Amino acid sequence: MSTDSTDPLADYPVVIVFPVQWGDQDPYAHVNNTVYFRWFESARIAYCIRLGLTATAASGGIGPILAAISCNYRRPLNFPDTVRVGARVTRIGRSSFTMEHALVSEVQGQLAADGSSVLVAYDYDRKQSSPLTPELRQAIEQLEGKTF
Amino acid sequence: MSTDSTDPLADYPVVIVFPVQWGDQDPYAHVNNTVYFRWFESARIAYCIRLGLTATAASGGIGPILAAISCNYRRPLNFPDTVRVGARVTRIGRSSFTMEHALVSEVQGQLAADGSSVLVAYDYDRKQSSPLTPELRQAIEQLEGKTF
Amino acid sequence: MSTDSTDPLADYPVVIVFPVQWGDQDPYAHVNNTVYFRWFESARIAYCIRLGLTATAASGGIGPILAAISCNYRRPLNFPDTVRVGARVTRIGRSSFTMEHALVSEVQGQLAADGSSVLVAYDYDRKQSSPLTPELRQAIEQLEGKTF
Amino acid sequence: MSTDSTDPLADYPVVIVFPVQWGDQDPYAHVNNTVYFRWFESARIAYCIRLGLTATAASGGIGPILAAISCNYRRPLNFPDTVRVGARVTRIGRSSFTMEHALVSEVQGQLAADGSSVLVAYDYDRKQSSPLTPELRQAIEQLEGKTF
Repeated sequence: MSTDSTDPLADYPVVIVFPVQWGDQDPYAHVNNTVYFRWFESARIAYCIRLGLTATAASGGIGPILAAISCNYRRPLNFPDTVRVGARVTRIGRSSFTMEHALVSEVQGQLAADGSSVLVAYDYDRKQSSPLTPELRQAIEQLEGKTF
Repeated sequence: MSTDSTDPLADYPVVIVFPVQWGDQDPYAHVNNTVYFRWFESARIAYCIRLGLTATAASGGIGPILAAISCNYRRPLNFPDTVRVGARVTRIGRSSFTMEHALVSEVQGQLAADGSSVLVAYDYDRKQSSPLTPELRQAIEQLEGKTF
Repeated sequence: MSTDSTDPLADYPVVIVFPVQWGDQDPYAHVNNTVYFRWFESARIAYCIRLGLTATAASGGIGPILAAISCNYRRPLNFPDTVRVGARVTRIGRSSFTMEHALVSEVQGQLAADGSSVLVAYDYDRKQSSPLTPELRQAIEQLEGKTF
Repeated sequence: MSTDSTDPLADYPVVIVFPVQWGDQDPYAHVNNTVYFRWFESARIAYCIRLGLTATAASGGIGPILAAISCNYRRPLNFPDTVRVGARVTRIGRSSFTMEHALVSEVQGQLAADGSSVLVAYDYDRKQSSPLTPELRQAIEQLEGKTF
């Protein structure tokens, strides 16, 4: 984890990169507001894979369910561009945790959007939310390099 | 505007209806989290059309820009279903206003999601945010049936 | 099945209706070319449901797999509009069948697009394509009101 | 332009690369059929930019309009994967040209899909299709490294 204070993603242990596609734009010729949530989702999945959180309805076990998400649109994005999208966990609760998202435009060299999501641990076998396991807490703390 | 207290959309002056499409679902076989924002957008546009807010970068004038949005996922949605999506304004500021969104599943007969967005009035001619005009405030108050 | 010769969808046993959403449009301010395929998919799924073809990788059995699809864009679509999308089967082969799609704009009152797809019957248990069952052939012929 | 006969994209002068996103998948846990057309579009736009074909309704001049497109799905795609998407022109007509698309999965190391599109030159000032200019023909021939 870099500590470069000039990079808005310096404190994000998971960062993925996407090319902006022409068709991501809407009639305003800006990237449509829904596309940011697709990118946030991809960063979230990448983070969960790093945690070993891959359980699904089909496979059983405990997996994450998205309970809430938000996005602040700070600068419009256009094609062509490349975005870097970061994910980090900032809160661990009993059966949920909070993930923050940030998105940097390579063309603009600045933060273009950020947001936050709440993920609930769900037990697909018992069909109910589940306390976060000690293993999951440990995996998050290890990835973030700090104790919550 | 209905005052039926059993309908979560009773206080929403603008309500639009969409069929859930099979392809709106993701590998979890639930409607993907990004689709809700497309529906919120459609309700927002319908509301803005009711206000006469149709200015764009191409046409000039003052139009709304989305500054922030959030969604709370309260119940998963599946295909087939029909959703009713409401929009209402709950706050008018100097150069922005807050719009709330709510989404009801016809199959489940319950609120499935809600959220909130902040819209900023943008002057496409002067390329900067703009105070809400008295006409726009009046149009919102007339549509909401109350004074802010 | 109507025989109204003035309706381009007269010979389509399955027709579904969708509102055009503002966000379906791209920077050309036309409905983006990919959206037509989402609508075709929804009509295809509606048709398959009518046939009882609901098998999937998860449930096992024989289900349809999309092998090829095409679309001819005859008139651009804009928001706001409502589209009616038809599906019909025009060929039944040994292990595949051909489905035609047509899309009518309510605003324009004309055919806006048409296309064709090839669906292969897939045996999810044996993991290979499968001859169409006599029951499936009969279901298609009954829905189309003719013999192939 | 490579002539490596083992690469299905060897004869494609324009090739772009995309990461498969988790949310590109549908309930079959395969990349949804509509996503291929988004990728084809991005390759098409990249090709047109190479040709200098950037005219739009807003800017005037002569720009390309998509008249038809098709896709053959040869192998299902899954997340995670990276796709390379090629575009090449195979026919130049009086006022249209044909572009072929091919898509290779990095994980599978094989062609996963291919397709074809017809692009019509459209004069946004005169609002009608337009003969391809000699400059455009020359730009295509130069990019393809052959005479049509």
